[in-house]
Amino acid sequence: MRFEVMTLFPEMIQSACSFSIMKRAVENGVFDVNTVNPRDFTLDKHKKADDTPYGGGAGMVLKVQPFVDAFESIQKTDNSITVMLSPQGKPLDDAKVNELANYNQIILICGHYEGFDERIREIIKPVEVSVGDFVMTGGELPALCLIDAVSRKLEGTLGKIESACEDTFSNGLVEYPHYTKPREFRGLKVPEVLLNGNHKEINEFRLQKSLERTKEKRPDLYEKYLKNHLDK
Amino acid sequence: MRFEVMTLFPEMIQSACSFSIMKRAVENGVFDVNTVNPRDFTLDKHKKADDTPYGGGAGMVLKVQPFVDAFESIQKTDNSITVMLSPQGKPLDDAKVNELANYNQIILICGHYEGFDERIREIIKPVEVSVGDFVMTGGELPALCLIDAVSRKLEGTLGKIESACEDTFSNGLVEYPHYTKPREFRGLKVPEVLLNGNHKEINEFRLQKSLERTKEKRPDLYEKYLKNHLDK
Repeated sequence: MRFEVMTLFPEMIQSACSFSIMKRAVENGVFDVNTVNPRDFTLDKHKKADDTPYGGGAGMVLKVQPFVDAFESIQKTDNSITVMLSPQGKPLDDAKVNELANYNQIILICGHYEGFDERIREIIKPVEVSVGDFVMTGGELPALCLIDAVSRKLEGTLGKIESACEDTFSNGLVEYPHYTKPREFRGLKVPEVLLNGNHKEINEFRLQKSLERTKEKRPDLYEKYLKNHLDK
Repeated sequence: MRFEVMTLFPEMIQSACSFSIMKRAVENGVFDVNTVNPRDFTLDKHKKADDTPYGGGAGMVLKVQPFVDAFESIQKTDNSITVMLSPQGKPLDDAKVNELANYNQIILICGHYEGFDERIREIIKPVEVSVGDFVMTGGELPALCLIDAVSRKLEGTLGKIESACEDTFSNGLVEYPHYTKPREFRGLKVPEVLLNGNHKEINEFRLQKSLERTKEKRPDLYEKYLKNHLDK
């Protein structure tokens, strides 16, 4: 998997990929992150990648020419997809993450300031993805969230592949509670059932807790789960 | 505003805050980001902040004692809130961002690996917030998204305060299209109405486009908008 990130702040992407699990996965060759800076494709001596909006209004708009030229400089592989990070996009979810994990190349377009000149969308025709119904100062953090979420679905990113399969959302439910040593902390004890080694009981306890928590914390997911299971 | 981030990867937080608009806002004293590493509160010589789960299963679980001790080491100000970044949380949205922007201190708890020992939740009782229905390798990127989204609501973060008011979601609609120079690029022209200087027409054009795009890209927001406007 190769991520190509179009950004005015390439150091932000490179630096975030140099920590923790992402760092290890990049070192192990599981995936690769390249950056392309539209500022390097500007044609004026001030290297202006943004300008004031036609029609007036606050903020600066990202210019079409540097972004389109930067995009066209990227060598496309087969099975490539282009994603624009934008609050207007479809919110990213686990299903979309799984779908994206099947591509060989994901080109990510990060905006900044007031937004993109509309013609960038018209020419590049990206899929638009949002990480949620809130606005950030730029597309870099959303791009990093997407890279992180997609890369952990790739074999070799996590220590044990099972870890990704047991997560919240992978079965449509919120995760069951976890416990580790010590058995008691400030009077709070680990549930007995987790200590008795009976795997059937442990699995039942965990499913029960998952259902309870989903019902409490995410009634929307609970409804969906019940509906899917009644349909079967 | 002061953000206190509990994380096993403090460099990741500090480094991301040293770019672009966030860097400027920190330098201008608009907000302040401090990190606390639970690993510094471990009591064993190997500084183990995680351990294997009771009851078996893949992945490592974050230990209760280092997280609780780290949390208690943070000096709380008045008007302080504690937020745990977790896929189980309520998805962050613009309303929640606005609410959070009113606190003086936001303590953010970032998880990693398989998750938190459940007793961390029981003792600290954080609000749980998610950035979307997908799983990441850690809570650091979600924490950074939250810091970015909240900080841009604070006066002094953005160049012009109006910018945050005109965003997608601030009026419940997807943003209208932006255009900047040149007037024509590869045959694609800026809409005439934006060039004529008639502000009434420009505003009507923008509202119309916002409505069209919301209907097309986010029918859920469109329904909500219509409902709110019919109620009034």
